[in-house]
Amino acid sequence: MKPIGPIPPAFADQKGELAIGGIGVADLAEAAGQTPFYAYDLEIASRQVARFRAAMPGDLHLHFAVKANPHPTVVKHFMQLTDGLDMASGGELERVREAGADMAHVSFAGPGKRDPELELAISLDATINLESESECARALKIAEKLGKTPRLAVRVNPDFELKGSGMSMGGGAKPFGVDQERVPALVAEIIASGADWRGFHIYSGSQSLDADAIAESQRASLALAAELAQAIGEPPKTVNLGGGFGIPYTANDAPLDIERIGEQLSAALDTRDAILGDTQFIIELGRWLIGEAGVYVARILDRKVSKDQLFLVTDGGMHHHLAASGNFGMVMKRNYPVAIASRMGTEAIESATIVGPLCTPLDKLATDIAVPHAEIGDFVAVFASGAYGLSASPVNFLSHPIAAEIVVNEGKITI
Amino acid sequence: MKPIGPIPPAFADQKGELAIGGIGVADLAEAAGQTPFYAYDLEIASRQVARFRAAMPGDLHLHFAVKANPHPTVVKHFMQLTDGLDMASGGELERVREAGADMAHVSFAGPGKRDPELELAISLDATINLESESECARALKIAEKLGKTPRLAVRVNPDFELKGSGMSMGGGAKPFGVDQERVPALVAEIIASGADWRGFHIYSGSQSLDADAIAESQRASLALAAELAQAIGEPPKTVNLGGGFGIPYTANDAPLDIERIGEQLSAALDTRDAILGDTQFIIELGRWLIGEAGVYVARILDRKVSKDQLFLVTDGGMHHHLAASGNFGMVMKRNYPVAIASRMGTEAIESATIVGPLCTPLDKLATDIAVPHAEIGDFVAVFASGAYGLSASPVNFLSHPIAAEIVVNEGKITI
Repeated sequence: MKPIGPIPPAFADQKGELAIGGIGVADLAEAAGQTPFYAYDLEIASRQVARFRAAMPGDLHLHFAVKANPHPTVVKHFMQLTDGLDMASGGELERVREAGADMAHVSFAGPGKRDPELELAISLDATINLESESECARALKIAEKLGKTPRLAVRVNPDFELKGSGMSMGGGAKPFGVDQERVPALVAEIIASGADWRGFHIYSGSQSLDADAIAESQRASLALAAELAQAIGEPPKTVNLGGGFGIPYTANDAPLDIERIGEQLSAALDTRDAILGDTQFIIELGRWLIGEAGVYVARILDRKVSKDQLFLVTDGGMHHHLAASGNFGMVMKRNYPVAIASRMGTEAIESATIVGPLCTPLDKLATDIAVPHAEIGDFVAVFASGAYGLSASPVNFLSHPIAAEIVVNEGKITI
Repeated sequence: MKPIGPIPPAFADQKGELAIGGIGVADLAEAAGQTPFYAYDLEIASRQVARFRAAMPGDLHLHFAVKANPHPTVVKHFMQLTDGLDMASGGELERVREAGADMAHVSFAGPGKRDPELELAISLDATINLESESECARALKIAEKLGKTPRLAVRVNPDFELKGSGMSMGGGAKPFGVDQERVPALVAEIIASGADWRGFHIYSGSQSLDADAIAESQRASLALAAELAQAIGEPPKTVNLGGGFGIPYTANDAPLDIERIGEQLSAALDTRDAILGDTQFIIELGRWLIGEAGVYVARILDRKVSKDQLFLVTDGGMHHHLAASGNFGMVMKRNYPVAIASRMGTEAIESATIVGPLCTPLDKLATDIAVPHAEIGDFVAVFASGAYGLSASPVNFLSHPIAAEIVVNEGKITI
């Protein structure tokens, strides 16, 4: 048998029927009108924001990275609780515009921005994190055409990377940002153009569970920002220190000690270079804020034995949850936290592989895990599914219905 | 530098601007109204069908597996050229119903069929490839409710597997089909119920480039079908021998020798057991029929250097083409066949990594490949993209626009 990832604290000790935000899965399925569905518990999201605020220096800004979960209700919730929103496309920008976001605290990063996306960002007064000199030239040209003063920051490709991160975004040759040694010249050009130079975006990695490594990369980012500001001769208004806060997905993953990050970041900010004295620092988080708040729920359609191995076949699978199937950047396929949601806390008595309805051996939600006896009609829950879930999955694959999404907050369901 | 996969024969010797079905990419982009787009050349598809017919025994039926490419025009094309269509979901069944397919030659497989899907298949008189005893019980119950005689075949999980296949679908414990030793009892039940027992579906693997391995699994399937028929005491009307015909994707992949398969299959059919004398045999293919007919085309948005490495950033990426990014069942990330589509046959003078617009290091279309000098505005083509392309990709990821799809046939473009 193979281990599963840790069930998030909010659900770990439940018995009987799984409740999400106090509402049982059967009631949630009825509200969703179907299985499979994703449910996002906004109280968990709110608690994460509160945990962040308590652990981090008081003047630090928290942004929500919309790419982690672009559901409109989720985005609106974080719009109210955080200090700003970070975009990864013009499509996301449209979404937050519709939600009524304050564009003074909206930024837009991404290595391949199309002209219409730059035009949208400039016309809305969002901050563009420039990824190259040629993108800067395009943005300035578009701004001139629009008669606007664009808000431009520079995404820096730092020489260092976030150690132990699931995905490294800095250190060495990268498609993201501008190599640090070329940044001062680019900023000089931005300032000379009359654009509103906002500062730096320094994003060195994501999905790290190592507090010291994150703190170290934050210190390195602060030092780099000061060095660049000295070279430019002008302080940045803002420095986005990136994110990188991970959540546990698989066995042996331990939760991130954010208090430990907060202590070290406070110390680093207290002793920062004078040129950064008035700079507003930002941490942008997606996965850490919403990942554990989401649960993917499917229903068992078949219970079958092949060559003495038990398969529980569900109506959900990789077309809704690519990451849980191990096909989204995971090098080794490992089991996410999974449970029979209608039999929480029931003793495991057999081993099962949980698969989806697709005609491909890739469509697995869990392999060889210990489960209580489960029958057709039982629910299966995949936890840690609030970030990079449905929006990062091949929803049209094999023309199955898309999963529903429901949001739970303070005991109430919103579709 | 890393090698790329082989460019399919239809495109391999082109010079200058890539033409698909005789039409240049710039014109195709204009017709599509955007980049990125997928273009499917139906003449290539037709040639594959003709190659199959020429190589295989004359009385063998060819089915198109709609899951490989569910584009309506593609499906209609194969509906006209092949002998039947195979479905993997109720959604696909809806598509071919709309296309006017002859349901006598439509079958439906998939390990997790929902009741509404069974109901749809039975009401349309499509053949259901049953995957378990409990699915059979559900189908019989639904047929009774509908007052219909259901067409039921049994998907067999054989003891052997297709050796060297990209994805093994048989041999050992599998979620697909019914273990071969339990098949006679299940068929006896089907016959006793008064249902129309159609025969067997024996699918032992996919994406194999080894002709002898495919021929061997076909011989094993024939022997198994005969053995099961003897045990049942009644001949199957049809036996679907599965598919498994692969196409070259990465360096060192050589094209499948289908003439070699055809010779061996002819010999095997000529000497088959007498109980299979009147049985109709079927091969179902998806990838081999349409894979090389499809090209994914994106446009270069940025040309940037980081730490002496060149990145060509395009407007297309993993959100449209998950497989090319190496995140769809590929264990080792290897380069697909890729070219600068506006500079075909031009001497390669530098090394580049081709990435997409997404804020993730997973978003790569090719890593460290040799390319001619390419500029912003140039087109990039990813070949071998006609199967499991757009429909198998996370199109909503980061809220970028979806790729367009266009079909080319006999010099004309259909959207």
